[in-house]
Amino acid sequence: MSIRKTRKNGTQSPEPVAGNGLLDRRVLLGRGVALAGAMTAGVGTSLTGAAAEPLEVGPWSLGPGVPVPPYGQPSKFEQKVVRTLSNPKLEPRGSAARTPHHLLNGTITPNGLHFVIARGGQTDIDPDKHRLAIHGLVKQPIVYPLDALHRYPMVSRITFVECGGNSAPLYSKEPIQASVQALHGLCSCAEWTGVRLSTLLEETGVDPAAKWFIAEGADLPTMNRSIPLAKAMDDAIIALYQNGERINPSNGYPIRLLVPGYEGNMNVKWLRRIKLVEGPVMAINETKQYTILRPDGKAWQFYFPQEVKSFITHPSPGLNMKGPGFYEISGIAFSGNGRISKVDVSADGGKSWAPAALQDPVLSKAFTRFRMAWSWDGSPVVLQSRATDEAGNVQPTRAALIAERGPPRGTPNVAAFTMEHFNAIASWGIDGKGEVSHVYA
Amino acid sequence: MSIRKTRKNGTQSPEPVAGNGLLDRRVLLGRGVALAGAMTAGVGTSLTGAAAEPLEVGPWSLGPGVPVPPYGQPSKFEQKVVRTLSNPKLEPRGSAARTPHHLLNGTITPNGLHFVIARGGQTDIDPDKHRLAIHGLVKQPIVYPLDALHRYPMVSRITFVECGGNSAPLYSKEPIQASVQALHGLCSCAEWTGVRLSTLLEETGVDPAAKWFIAEGADLPTMNRSIPLAKAMDDAIIALYQNGERINPSNGYPIRLLVPGYEGNMNVKWLRRIKLVEGPVMAINETKQYTILRPDGKAWQFYFPQEVKSFITHPSPGLNMKGPGFYEISGIAFSGNGRISKVDVSADGGKSWAPAALQDPVLSKAFTRFRMAWSWDGSPVVLQSRATDEAGNVQPTRAALIAERGPPRGTPNVAAFTMEHFNAIASWGIDGKGEVSHVYA
Repeated sequence: MSIRKTRKNGTQSPEPVAGNGLLDRRVLLGRGVALAGAMTAGVGTSLTGAAAEPLEVGPWSLGPGVPVPPYGQPSKFEQKVVRTLSNPKLEPRGSAARTPHHLLNGTITPNGLHFVIARGGQTDIDPDKHRLAIHGLVKQPIVYPLDALHRYPMVSRITFVECGGNSAPLYSKEPIQASVQALHGLCSCAEWTGVRLSTLLEETGVDPAAKWFIAEGADLPTMNRSIPLAKAMDDAIIALYQNGERINPSNGYPIRLLVPGYEGNMNVKWLRRIKLVEGPVMAINETKQYTILRPDGKAWQFYFPQEVKSFITHPSPGLNMKGPGFYEISGIAFSGNGRISKVDVSADGGKSWAPAALQDPVLSKAFTRFRMAWSWDGSPVVLQSRATDEAGNVQPTRAALIAERGPPRGTPNVAAFTMEHFNAIASWGIDGKGEVSHVYA
Repeated sequence: MSIRKTRKNGTQSPEPVAGNGLLDRRVLLGRGVALAGAMTAGVGTSLTGAAAEPLEVGPWSLGPGVPVPPYGQPSKFEQKVVRTLSNPKLEPRGSAARTPHHLLNGTITPNGLHFVIARGGQTDIDPDKHRLAIHGLVKQPIVYPLDALHRYPMVSRITFVECGGNSAPLYSKEPIQASVQALHGLCSCAEWTGVRLSTLLEETGVDPAAKWFIAEGADLPTMNRSIPLAKAMDDAIIALYQNGERINPSNGYPIRLLVPGYEGNMNVKWLRRIKLVEGPVMAINETKQYTILRPDGKAWQFYFPQEVKSFITHPSPGLNMKGPGFYEISGIAFSGNGRISKVDVSADGGKSWAPAALQDPVLSKAFTRFRMAWSWDGSPVVLQSRATDEAGNVQPTRAALIAERGPPRGTPNVAAFTMEHFNAIASWGIDGKGEVSHVYA
């Protein structure tokens, strides 16, 4: 079935609002405002008259299907929609599993596709034998079995988690040709439900000397991080549910700490212990790892929130264009400092910008899906997105970020030590054939 | 590890705000407002002093885990968290798969656990061979392949779908002793993403004579329903994604119609055809099924929105109490007519009520999680929830609904024909031993 470039109702295209064919957000409303014009290069195939039976009947319509399973799995035709694994055989090093954002849409990441960083593989914990202890500088240390935690007041929150090392490939000297999954796949968003840490600390009481807490996991490497006590009193959650069901084993079943907006590794999985202390424990993940070395040799340490970021998922490298005409440019924006207030999109490498539509509800520290109507004339273009959060932070250009952090150090095409918290604008180049590549612009 | 009834800090319990121990919503905030008092019957186990190593080390902490899988599955310890199936061997009759709400929390239903009604089993469609036709009273009929649909402007919406026959067991003459899953499991909530039907109708054009549309599925029974064209122009979605990933096969992969708030069967799965027409087609599901027979022998037909409803998931039948003390009462509320504006909870069978906390964000035509703080003294109680929507509709008592609809007709304990749109208040009785049962109160 061919893609047609023209349609028959003779309406006019709306005027572009920025270079290379970006169209006004009202085009997206689908309520008679100019969409017909935007569809000058309609993508459906018109029929000649109203055929009584315009469709072939597929074999699936000619016989019964299969039984509905107790726990549904994605279609067998979607087997490519999986996480990519850095360590599929669990050799003695860390494992990363990346979310395929270029194959997803909306804002929720299904539990099977949520990104993972695990230093010791996926820990399979028997929930009946697992406990959470809160101790240290408290008035009354308490050990909570799982069934006890389920009696406390709970809270649900849709929030993202992002690895501090997400997007690190964009720090390399030359643009790495890879999908959004490879470049930005270490972030995901889910609805988490659990007990506020502050609720449990009301019960244990807090010694006035306590200023930090250490969160420790039950995995083999005993993952631990130091977090200011103020975060516990603000919005930290002892999470028990992920998108409605109990947390996935790769994401910390049966308990993970959730510190919304903070660096991924601080959201300690397989949580077994919260210890209130006077100062940080100086764990490997806050000394050797997850510090940002500046050009002058000093380092940023205890750098918690993930900064404002956005990237375009559709189109993106690997998702090539199917001829000129109308497209929706769509992507994800988020900030560890609050709500997204604006996402601008450029189709001319940053010379001109137009505001994208933000999908409601726009939630604090959650993925926000942005959408931009676009009429592509087939010429080479460079697509970019630039997010702003409610605190006024604006996603920097790559040049500005590197000017601040210093040039890439480490092995060719691999950034080392300076790779954390890379939140600069990403650029997708589209050539005259419609091939999409990663470019620096 | 025993459950303790007392704690040591000597704070006082807050005053109840309704009968049998319902507590003020502020208790839920976990910000120093009275929770400590509410926890007079604390549920954790206090330690005597701050033990240096209060936890046993589980075997999972002593060796590496397993490799992170490409597509994660729930923990092996959660194998009971599945849909219950009415027709596991696909005998020649319909199939129902019910959501285990008593084992979930939050508002999102994972795709593997979304409820299903299927007349011909789960239809496995090859997306490359599937088409959506829009024809009938349009100016230009169009057939859309899947890859064409992906170029149109999309919208995401968190919304519930509920079978018109959900909660029908509550119509039986005696209260059926079964879990929330069996009683209320034919409703679920997900983030759906796709193209507005109105967007596609802008392209096809609409003949002014068109007043309805017929949506038809590609399953063996060729599921079809008539829907007013106004719904297409309002908020109907040609859905392609469910919670971020492509729609689950049991829920209509690769395309389902979504008509937010309307009776479940109108959200036609495996959608292949939208035909614009002057009047309804009088399909089996709008004549024999899904009409409500009144006592006077007339029937309500084309009764679209699912009315305001709520039910308590925790505690609920099968989830028995673990001794007196603090609990969170929690449940789900929703309305096909908009947002939930209020949920009241009673612990004395409707004599006194207190407003529950509603979890943000409260979205139109979506599940809203409500929560109520409760101090149970161990006496027999009857728990109820009563939802109100922004249109002012209030969930009726069972007695009021039956007075309107007429007494149960059909075989004992099975309501027939009069079972649709049952949205009355449900009651859970708790006896002195903490056993929870379904009661009529």
